[in-house]
Amino acid sequence: MIGVGIYGATGYTGYELIKILWDHPEMELVFATSERMAGERLADVFPCHDQTRLVSSAEAPVEEADAVFFCLPHGESMARVREIYDRHLKMVDLSADFRLRNAKSYQRWYGREHVAPDLLPEAVYGLPELYRERIRSASLVANPGCYPTSVILGVAPLARRGLLRSFRVIADSKSGASGAGRTPSRKMLFVEVNENVLPYNVGRMHRHVGEMEQELSALANRKVDIIFSPHLVPLNVGIVSTLYVELDPGLAEDEVRRAYREAYAEEPFVRVLEKGTMAHLKYVANTNDCAISIHRVDDEGNYIIVSTIDNLIKGASGQAVQNMNVMFGWDESLGLRRGG
Amino acid sequence: MIGVGIYGATGYTGYELIKILWDHPEMELVFATSERMAGERLADVFPCHDQTRLVSSAEAPVEEADAVFFCLPHGESMARVREIYDRHLKMVDLSADFRLRNAKSYQRWYGREHVAPDLLPEAVYGLPELYRERIRSASLVANPGCYPTSVILGVAPLARRGLLRSFRVIADSKSGASGAGRTPSRKMLFVEVNENVLPYNVGRMHRHVGEMEQELSALANRKVDIIFSPHLVPLNVGIVSTLYVELDPGLAEDEVRRAYREAYAEEPFVRVLEKGTMAHLKYVANTNDCAISIHRVDDEGNYIIVSTIDNLIKGASGQAVQNMNVMFGWDESLGLRRGG
Amino acid sequence: MIGVGIYGATGYTGYELIKILWDHPEMELVFATSERMAGERLADVFPCHDQTRLVSSAEAPVEEADAVFFCLPHGESMARVREIYDRHLKMVDLSADFRLRNAKSYQRWYGREHVAPDLLPEAVYGLPELYRERIRSASLVANPGCYPTSVILGVAPLARRGLLRSFRVIADSKSGASGAGRTPSRKMLFVEVNENVLPYNVGRMHRHVGEMEQELSALANRKVDIIFSPHLVPLNVGIVSTLYVELDPGLAEDEVRRAYREAYAEEPFVRVLEKGTMAHLKYVANTNDCAISIHRVDDEGNYIIVSTIDNLIKGASGQAVQNMNVMFGWDESLGLRRGG
Amino acid sequence: MIGVGIYGATGYTGYELIKILWDHPEMELVFATSERMAGERLADVFPCHDQTRLVSSAEAPVEEADAVFFCLPHGESMARVREIYDRHLKMVDLSADFRLRNAKSYQRWYGREHVAPDLLPEAVYGLPELYRERIRSASLVANPGCYPTSVILGVAPLARRGLLRSFRVIADSKSGASGAGRTPSRKMLFVEVNENVLPYNVGRMHRHVGEMEQELSALANRKVDIIFSPHLVPLNVGIVSTLYVELDPGLAEDEVRRAYREAYAEEPFVRVLEKGTMAHLKYVANTNDCAISIHRVDDEGNYIIVSTIDNLIKGASGQAVQNMNVMFGWDESLGLRRGG
Repeated sequence: MIGVGIYGATGYTGYELIKILWDHPEMELVFATSERMAGERLADVFPCHDQTRLVSSAEAPVEEADAVFFCLPHGESMARVREIYDRHLKMVDLSADFRLRNAKSYQRWYGREHVAPDLLPEAVYGLPELYRERIRSASLVANPGCYPTSVILGVAPLARRGLLRSFRVIADSKSGASGAGRTPSRKMLFVEVNENVLPYNVGRMHRHVGEMEQELSALANRKVDIIFSPHLVPLNVGIVSTLYVELDPGLAEDEVRRAYREAYAEEPFVRVLEKGTMAHLKYVANTNDCAISIHRVDDEGNYIIVSTIDNLIKGASGQAVQNMNVMFGWDESLGLRRGG
Repeated sequence: MIGVGIYGATGYTGYELIKILWDHPEMELVFATSERMAGERLADVFPCHDQTRLVSSAEAPVEEADAVFFCLPHGESMARVREIYDRHLKMVDLSADFRLRNAKSYQRWYGREHVAPDLLPEAVYGLPELYRERIRSASLVANPGCYPTSVILGVAPLARRGLLRSFRVIADSKSGASGAGRTPSRKMLFVEVNENVLPYNVGRMHRHVGEMEQELSALANRKVDIIFSPHLVPLNVGIVSTLYVELDPGLAEDEVRRAYREAYAEEPFVRVLEKGTMAHLKYVANTNDCAISIHRVDDEGNYIIVSTIDNLIKGASGQAVQNMNVMFGWDESLGLRRGG
Repeated sequence: MIGVGIYGATGYTGYELIKILWDHPEMELVFATSERMAGERLADVFPCHDQTRLVSSAEAPVEEADAVFFCLPHGESMARVREIYDRHLKMVDLSADFRLRNAKSYQRWYGREHVAPDLLPEAVYGLPELYRERIRSASLVANPGCYPTSVILGVAPLARRGLLRSFRVIADSKSGASGAGRTPSRKMLFVEVNENVLPYNVGRMHRHVGEMEQELSALANRKVDIIFSPHLVPLNVGIVSTLYVELDPGLAEDEVRRAYREAYAEEPFVRVLEKGTMAHLKYVANTNDCAISIHRVDDEGNYIIVSTIDNLIKGASGQAVQNMNVMFGWDESLGLRRGG
Repeated sequence: MIGVGIYGATGYTGYELIKILWDHPEMELVFATSERMAGERLADVFPCHDQTRLVSSAEAPVEEADAVFFCLPHGESMARVREIYDRHLKMVDLSADFRLRNAKSYQRWYGREHVAPDLLPEAVYGLPELYRERIRSASLVANPGCYPTSVILGVAPLARRGLLRSFRVIADSKSGASGAGRTPSRKMLFVEVNENVLPYNVGRMHRHVGEMEQELSALANRKVDIIFSPHLVPLNVGIVSTLYVELDPGLAEDEVRRAYREAYAEEPFVRVLEKGTMAHLKYVANTNDCAISIHRVDDEGNYIIVSTIDNLIKGASGQAVQNMNVMFGWDESLGLRRGG
């Protein structure tokens, strides 16, 4: 049993992480921080019965922790990581601060200077399906964004095997409202979100584009362009990414399907659905799974890939625990297995 | 065609009022105020195409208005009403500031001193079904609260005719999220409201209890006690009040039913449903109607009355327009009729 | 005042049509048919107070009608239209039976033989924005499908002006549940739809593809291919179509924007939003409007067009009334104007 | 590890039970029946990956089972229980067939004759908080209804300790749509349930009234009358019961509160919330917990008790597993513990 701390525990990802830790056989929460709500119990902040008291980060008993999760906003996270780095704790950062491989990309997409550029080479992008070996020995893992998790897992088998003919991929994603976090805002009020579908930051404006392109380009060994349209839909959790790809028309559907099956054959958390079955949120809600379905469109190589996750679990806190499991050499599914 | 102004136009009731005014044949919006968003167009603040610019209240061209609506928060409204009073405009105040008949009740339920107690006797409680004649000649109408509208209309025929045996009425109300207004707060975020039912301020804590008791006691000619439990349910608009009343066991069901039919026979906006039909929100959403159904429970005089309204229309802006129609002697339904 | 009848009045489009007719100054409902519910009142079938009794089609007093709407399922509609044709009534058919221009296309997309192929040349595709003049003198108007209305209006200015570089358009549409109709089925139960996003019939499988391609090809004067992914999202009404188009990279954004503004300058029901504003459902819910926003993606000519409608109004019954208004030479907006 | 079978596995309670069994360390599913879908895999019927094939009940390998769950509709269940009875398997029946203690009550509330009246004395009402000892040695447990679970747990401490002054209890319950089951019907379509609150069977009409009165009367040692108003609200799972009770005015609030704390001190699945905290669905969703909050209304002994459960778990399948755990002498929480 190791001790773990959480920096920034009062948002939706923090709570999801806490819930996973309650049942995790090898990790025990030793502190959870909040500057604004320090002194309050988790039971005051979330609908639960956990009497653990939040502490300010200054008071956090870091010495009791073997590992920490950062659920801070981007920008704040890198400062804290820098501070913790020398203590040789295992770290999983759920913010965007260490996902991009260089400080220049970070500056471009996040509009601010990186304060710990020397640590960027240390960070491993925490998609175990791509980087399991490197995660195993990493001390700092950059947990992927929710949208990128769905999009990258949905396109990776094609990119890696050289099956893409066009290197422009259209990702039309629909996300539940928990993706927007727990900070009060008018546009996230119930009445605004309910009975609406809201596209936002469409095209190449959303920050996750940088992350998707970085990873898919690395896999394809050439520049891949993403056109990305996120949509806010009236539900709590889940992302459905509908991906439009263009493959070699000569490719048989079976080969495409096989590329996915082989890529994910050993993966505990990626499910390639059978032909004729459509991926949707009910397959993945409350699980750490990514469910993918493959749909041939025409004779010209057009395919639609549907890739779905629970944005708070595989898209955030579940994947963070999966990464920590890998870093500590435990069964990768520890604390993350729910059923069938 | 008269000119009307709205003070405090950027909330949900303000918007609902604006939408009604767009189609109203006798009223034209001449100004809409907002301190915080002055200078912006309605089209910037709501999903519409209206190019009217919001003005601060100091800049509002009051001289162009024949009548004003106040959609300000309680506490702010009474100060503004006081200011406008001497101009002899017709006024409908949608806040709670003039609903209670004396300053002491106001102090008790709203926890602050009333700044215009001399105007309280001038104000008429704006439920046309009860006070139509007085509204006709009023210059200041206090538009009822949303919950009280549903509860008072649901119990009034019993109270007025002396059919109540117990003078304790239980009102269990379920309201959509627009009732909580448009100010950002954590508890009104989509994720918090969705997939939940949240009782709040149950018992005798909610401020609307004072208003319900005042009006029902006046009708019954003795003190009526209300036990009131509001619940937030995951939908945008509508209130369903399930009312538990105890009548004389000797009373035949037909007499009870007749009391309602007669009370509302001439009312354009109250619908007493037929025996065997249950009132629910689909009867009233997007209308100024109140739909009421009557359910006999047992031989001992217990009845359940279900009273439903659209909280933004009959529970706020529609009723405000209905009151204004009465004040100006127009057809009471002007701008409020939608179908069947 | 003319008399109108509705064949097949008990679904969601039937009810929406009835609600519009309640307020329409020139049309009066003279009959509404249902085989299964003949004898019941509208008030028994919908949450309303209309005492009109449904009749079987055999009993319908067609002689009292000057015009009829068909809200029957495809396949049933064409038989009934054939029957009514010789009576010289104005007809708007809301089914798919007369949307495709030839019997062969119909056979291909609907898998059955057309029973009134001789009437196909008589039918005008009822998108007034494209065919107003022809609708004016038509006796049979084929009311467009809900998805096609949003997609065709979203792409028409580009197709007609020759601005498309690629003639493959990707349409990713999100629709509320009323689009699936009112027939009970397990997959449309609340619990199944709620907290889910369900892609279905993606690629080139949905029947509306034929209709979109027919109309856009006619405008572009060459074959346009549609890749179409409908998604069921958990809300009642509305369609958001996110359209991915590829234009000439040399084209300035202003020219693209101008194409839309000019195309729809005189249109009462199409709103081209300002630059920087995103179309979403709150702009169009409960209205006959189509709201369109235009988003430049990159320097290579990629654009995203967001086109939104209320699927029951502009996507069905509102558009049907708009067509009827045109056919009778009335103000096109009669009964369809709601505010701002 | 024992083998368990499920009769009637294709509804929501069947699926919830299957999901619990996936993770249960002592029970293994050996068969799941469906007459209509025999031959299909669970993965065809639910959004999961379980390849178990449904069998007809005639083909069910009962000999491999040590225990069975009945998720059949009432009426069907009693016939099947009768058939299995002589095999000496442990049985939990989730239908209503064995909840009422005598055949006459059953006839009254369910409108049909009981086909196994001789087994009624054998059946134990499966609320472990009331009947744990009897459940331990029972062979047939009648799993309580969802509404009764919330209402009985919410009133039991008062009834048992003689704290009720009035023996009439008003229960106003709000339930998510999964409570209505998975059979297609018009009124359970998404569009009908969404944006509505629907009271139904209010007063003394709902069948669960019989069950509530039987159990509360037994606890109070005299007749308790229930006035019960169920409401359908637009969410998937959960019941909130708002209970209006009248106690001795002389009773201090602390004593009332203590009655609850003591009654449930040792209970693993009942949470009495602290003063000032309101019970709501987020406390119990996805758990086997019942959360109860206590609210003093006035000086006259009126209290409001809010009692909440997840209707599919504590209100059905979770409680069924809890009962089975008790019957087999295992830790009562086996397979049912999720976190905090």
